[in-house]
Amino acid sequence: MEHPENSKEYKGLTVNDGVEQPAIVNPYLKQQRRRRRELPVSEMVEGIVKGNVTVLSQAVTLVESVNPEHYAKAQEVIEKCLPYSGNSVRIGISGVPGAGKSTSIDEFGIHVLNTYGGKLAVLAIDPSSERTKGSILGDKTRMEKLAQHPKSFIRPSPSAGSLGGVARKTRETIILCEAAGFDKVFVETVGVGQSETACHSMVDFFLLIQLAGTGDELQGIKRGIMEISDGIVINKCDGNNVDKCHLAATSFRNALHFFPQPESGWTPKVLCYSGFYGLGIKEIWDMVYEYFDFVKANGYFRYRRNEQSKYWMYESINEQLRDHFYHNPKIQSMMNEAERMVLAGEKTSFAAAGELFEFYKKIYGVGVADRD
Amino acid sequence: MEHPENSKEYKGLTVNDGVEQPAIVNPYLKQQRRRRRELPVSEMVEGIVKGNVTVLSQAVTLVESVNPEHYAKAQEVIEKCLPYSGNSVRIGISGVPGAGKSTSIDEFGIHVLNTYGGKLAVLAIDPSSERTKGSILGDKTRMEKLAQHPKSFIRPSPSAGSLGGVARKTRETIILCEAAGFDKVFVETVGVGQSETACHSMVDFFLLIQLAGTGDELQGIKRGIMEISDGIVINKCDGNNVDKCHLAATSFRNALHFFPQPESGWTPKVLCYSGFYGLGIKEIWDMVYEYFDFVKANGYFRYRRNEQSKYWMYESINEQLRDHFYHNPKIQSMMNEAERMVLAGEKTSFAAAGELFEFYKKIYGVGVADRD
Repeated sequence: MEHPENSKEYKGLTVNDGVEQPAIVNPYLKQQRRRRRELPVSEMVEGIVKGNVTVLSQAVTLVESVNPEHYAKAQEVIEKCLPYSGNSVRIGISGVPGAGKSTSIDEFGIHVLNTYGGKLAVLAIDPSSERTKGSILGDKTRMEKLAQHPKSFIRPSPSAGSLGGVARKTRETIILCEAAGFDKVFVETVGVGQSETACHSMVDFFLLIQLAGTGDELQGIKRGIMEISDGIVINKCDGNNVDKCHLAATSFRNALHFFPQPESGWTPKVLCYSGFYGLGIKEIWDMVYEYFDFVKANGYFRYRRNEQSKYWMYESINEQLRDHFYHNPKIQSMMNEAERMVLAGEKTSFAAAGELFEFYKKIYGVGVADRD
Repeated sequence: MEHPENSKEYKGLTVNDGVEQPAIVNPYLKQQRRRRRELPVSEMVEGIVKGNVTVLSQAVTLVESVNPEHYAKAQEVIEKCLPYSGNSVRIGISGVPGAGKSTSIDEFGIHVLNTYGGKLAVLAIDPSSERTKGSILGDKTRMEKLAQHPKSFIRPSPSAGSLGGVARKTRETIILCEAAGFDKVFVETVGVGQSETACHSMVDFFLLIQLAGTGDELQGIKRGIMEISDGIVINKCDGNNVDKCHLAATSFRNALHFFPQPESGWTPKVLCYSGFYGLGIKEIWDMVYEYFDFVKANGYFRYRRNEQSKYWMYESINEQLRDHFYHNPKIQSMMNEAERMVLAGEKTSFAAAGELFEFYKKIYGVGVADRD
């Protein structure tokens, strides 16, 4: 840069050239790339079984990963953790958006930890989180008290594409949490989808959070959710809302007559509470634990877990069968035409299905293998 | 035979040898084997479209046959009848055993034929008929008036093994009946199984027959049946049962608030009637036809039929995929072991399912075909 002030006329204003400054950081220091070491399977399992939450988080991340290498490793970890799992009570908690699920779970969790001890894991199933790019369930910032509790582990919903994928990851995460000594597991879902059926198929008790009202609020509730509930609790029973809540509880109790008796032999109960003011929480959990005593005594607890294991095995097979068929590019290209013909009344649904399946068998040479 | 009385000592008691009698029937008469001629496909279709009930019955028998030759012929007939089908209203009628379905359908049918004219076909879905060796549904002897009506066609439930099979045959029979000019189709089911879902997926209106009571009778009703009902009617509203029935109707109306609003936009109605005394029948059918006006106006009628066609196509594909997998002898022999390992906690449900599916892919050389 030219400095005109350096010319003779401006003698008094001379600006010196800058001096190169020494480096602030020692240039001889070799910076080590700090990266969290990925644990081998055996150490990971050991860490989990010891109850190390950091290792548990790493393992859950592996479960949720879409990388096939991570997937394989996760499967190994899960298999090794399996013998340590199963010793927990799993509770599904559902309700429409706005029912106050997060606040309630916060209160429920603290109450359960204070009353029954042990450790609590809060997981979530929300297949919509893929679409909305971010899960609203299992959000730590919405469960302030639990998030700071040393005995809790909160994990938002994995964002896999399909419900089957999300449900699978959640079920696998339950195994890891149980192996890490979490003897209480909450699985949160939002009451507007098939996720309830998935959730119901992996928990021991299904709790439905409702609001008082004339029934109009219920439109958001999906088919069949009342029927799978082992307990219905009505939130926001405080202030001048108390009468309305008790009235709603009575209608719910009457309505339950119109549902078939659950297989467990347990009669679903309806209770009122206030998540915000922490009222009526004890009664709810007395009820839940009464249920556990009841079904453990009559053998239904064990029976339901076994049925669930079988359900997921068959469900997983069926999903793979369907995926393999419907994701086949040749089948996909024929599918639209088949659908068009069926809708135009040119072919019956069964004839179209039969032809597609015959074609599918042909490309995979099923006839050849059948001769073996 | 030796006759001791023919010896000299018994002279007076001689027994003559028998004389051969002439044949009662002329031995030169050549008896013609009378056998009903089986119609070729084109004549069968012609007969059906002309409304010939004898030909229709023959075609339905072909549909119900397990003989692959009959099956192929039936498919041809159905495909040719398809352009003539679809012009009917299809009504599903369900209720627990003892609710008075047969008597009610008898009354309903006569009322509908007298009021709206046209022709009525009564079909049934009862997968249990295979087990009990004989269908209790769609029994002509229990629908006395309809059985003698010239414009009615009653057909009991086909007795195929699986629900899928029965449902398919019933749906195909609907096509044949419609082609034969039956513009009203009743599909009867018994309210204790998955057959309701199948029935609901092939009718335009689903009517549930109930009885008055405190809710205990409802235990026989399967999950989700109230939710798929477009109308609930309470039978045996006569004599000193009237008050009880009206009370029950009110509870049902209240209970309906706890179910989500149906997609059709129609609010399910609850009515009382007496099938035995023929009271309140008109009100029921005014309601059913009001529904048809409503859904034809808002486009749901067409939409539901299209959805049903698609549903059955996908359902049929999925069933074939499952059958092909689970009926594979190699898979079957591995299945028990997989189930045992899952229940013993040696493997997760997903790992077991994955291994079975990998094995299945291997025997059918899926990898080879995928490279094409």
